[in-house]
Amino acid sequence: MNNYFTEYENLEVHELMLRDRPRQEAYYNAILKNKELFKDKIVLDVGAGTGILSAFCAQAGAKLVYAVEASNLATKVALDLIDENGLTSVVKVIHSQIEEFVLPATAEKVDIIVSEWMGFYLLHEGMLDSVLFARDHFLKPDGLMFPSECTIFVAPCSVPTLFDYWQNVDGVNMERFASKLRLQKSTRPEIIQLKSNDLLHEGIVFHWMSLLDVNPKDLDEICFKEVVATQIAGKHQGFCIWFEVRFPGEETVVLSTSPHAPETHWKQCVVVLPEDNCETLEEKSPVAFQILMKRSANDARKYNLEVELLDPNVEEHPMPCSCHMTKCILTEAHLKMMDTT
Amino acid sequence: MNNYFTEYENLEVHELMLRDRPRQEAYYNAILKNKELFKDKIVLDVGAGTGILSAFCAQAGAKLVYAVEASNLATKVALDLIDENGLTSVVKVIHSQIEEFVLPATAEKVDIIVSEWMGFYLLHEGMLDSVLFARDHFLKPDGLMFPSECTIFVAPCSVPTLFDYWQNVDGVNMERFASKLRLQKSTRPEIIQLKSNDLLHEGIVFHWMSLLDVNPKDLDEICFKEVVATQIAGKHQGFCIWFEVRFPGEETVVLSTSPHAPETHWKQCVVVLPEDNCETLEEKSPVAFQILMKRSANDARKYNLEVELLDPNVEEHPMPCSCHMTKCILTEAHLKMMDTT
Repeated sequence: MNNYFTEYENLEVHELMLRDRPRQEAYYNAILKNKELFKDKIVLDVGAGTGILSAFCAQAGAKLVYAVEASNLATKVALDLIDENGLTSVVKVIHSQIEEFVLPATAEKVDIIVSEWMGFYLLHEGMLDSVLFARDHFLKPDGLMFPSECTIFVAPCSVPTLFDYWQNVDGVNMERFASKLRLQKSTRPEIIQLKSNDLLHEGIVFHWMSLLDVNPKDLDEICFKEVVATQIAGKHQGFCIWFEVRFPGEETVVLSTSPHAPETHWKQCVVVLPEDNCETLEEKSPVAFQILMKRSANDARKYNLEVELLDPNVEEHPMPCSCHMTKCILTEAHLKMMDTT
Repeated sequence: MNNYFTEYENLEVHELMLRDRPRQEAYYNAILKNKELFKDKIVLDVGAGTGILSAFCAQAGAKLVYAVEASNLATKVALDLIDENGLTSVVKVIHSQIEEFVLPATAEKVDIIVSEWMGFYLLHEGMLDSVLFARDHFLKPDGLMFPSECTIFVAPCSVPTLFDYWQNVDGVNMERFASKLRLQKSTRPEIIQLKSNDLLHEGIVFHWMSLLDVNPKDLDEICFKEVVATQIAGKHQGFCIWFEVRFPGEETVVLSTSPHAPETHWKQCVVVLPEDNCETLEEKSPVAFQILMKRSANDARKYNLEVELLDPNVEEHPMPCSCHMTKCILTEAHLKMMDTT
């Protein structure tokens, strides 16, 4: 058993997730407000943890739920939880990695796969691979995935918690300390909660995928290059990355980790710019950048995240672009004219 | 250099302390609102860290401040901070453990020792020993200590974050999980912020000391036995321990880490009772207990904290005692009668 799973044997990790109200409410609503999808269905819960999602599925009317959990939580917690909620006739707890799980010889494949696999900036932890393995091996052709779609967003942002405060700490200038603090933190992205108004742009989609057809190979490297025009003026000090996932059903449920949404334990992932690249931008300033999210060669569960600032004078802008550069203003005017003729 | 000091080379530890507003305000007010105490004085800052307290002292009019710091922050941060605030002529940054520090041969002893040495439940970290070493070696006979007095309080309390929530997590009973979670956490005291109304008693002093005369030996073992009568009804699930420190001066400054005071990074230290010992108490219920805070044999910076529930029928109650046991009601009535005659 490797470290990844033993980490989840720490119950405090689960406490954190179980107290995350937006997370809980999203799964609860997605499952229990779409009971018609679960009624008499066979469900596979990948990485069942404490077993709470399996309990939701049973309560929604599933006839059989396989709760597959690789850590010892399967036997230490999930079995108990299923028992104390009177669901043992529906939920089968299986202590196994999903890759080693086998359906009983006579059993049919499952109608629905449920999983809460998301890590920081969605892909950190790389548990999605296991969910896709489950899809490819155990899901019926017309089966459903809960969640079914994921989107990753990015936006230029201010990071006041790192940059403000230090000019005057009770009458003492601590700029140089702050500078070293940022340098110490710059070795990895910051997992922090930004406020809505720290974003200089509402965010653009930098990656979208459907869990029904995405391939693990597609996740080895995600590269995105764009020019965005800031929508408000502010200090450009980093890039904020967040995700949302959507669930199938009449009652559409979206779990968002945006700074606009209520705080979750995922918060946001902020890549902080080196001091020299920070600048105060007016509204409609073009910000050109490239993000590379690449699976680490040493550990498939980890990603290296690289953000490169590019020169907006050189990079191609989207069409239309709302930035204040002359060529974009002209193009926009031209397009508008063509629209009205 | 041992681990204790290298931990403090992590700037994020200092960020946490520097953002702790009650901590900052207490030291700021204690020093800068009592300038008459600092004017033309010689100050020793023990464990100066980033150097901010030394800067306060210089700004308050000290003629010389020794900022002694054992970690490499001395050279990496404090020197810079003193420089960028134009205080190099007053503040001397010294990279040394206080135990190895020597005053220049011709120098006089110091008038004031300033230090922020407090750890969780006051004594954890055991930095106080170094402060007392400094007092014994470098402070003038009539010198001042900032802070000068410390008090540790204890009160029986509820711990809703550990006990509530789990009966019904979105329709799922997670009591057994919660029970295991508490067991996992019970191996060490919880550092958490309670709400005022989680306390079943306003708190009694379980230890008080003056930094002018306390001896490190006095801190090897602190034992306290008491019967307190709850002041409100509630679930007795643990004991909450907190401290306050006081500073000298006309303008009395108290830094309190009580649940009644604004949250600090120290929060409170809660010793959680085993499930079987938890009970719902009425107002005026006697709670008899003994606390033993004992320096660890392996690591003088750490303490073992033991709380033992005692039988209030057997233990001697204070006189008077406001609990609802007959003997105490009678005694109280008797004392009141004597008072009025």
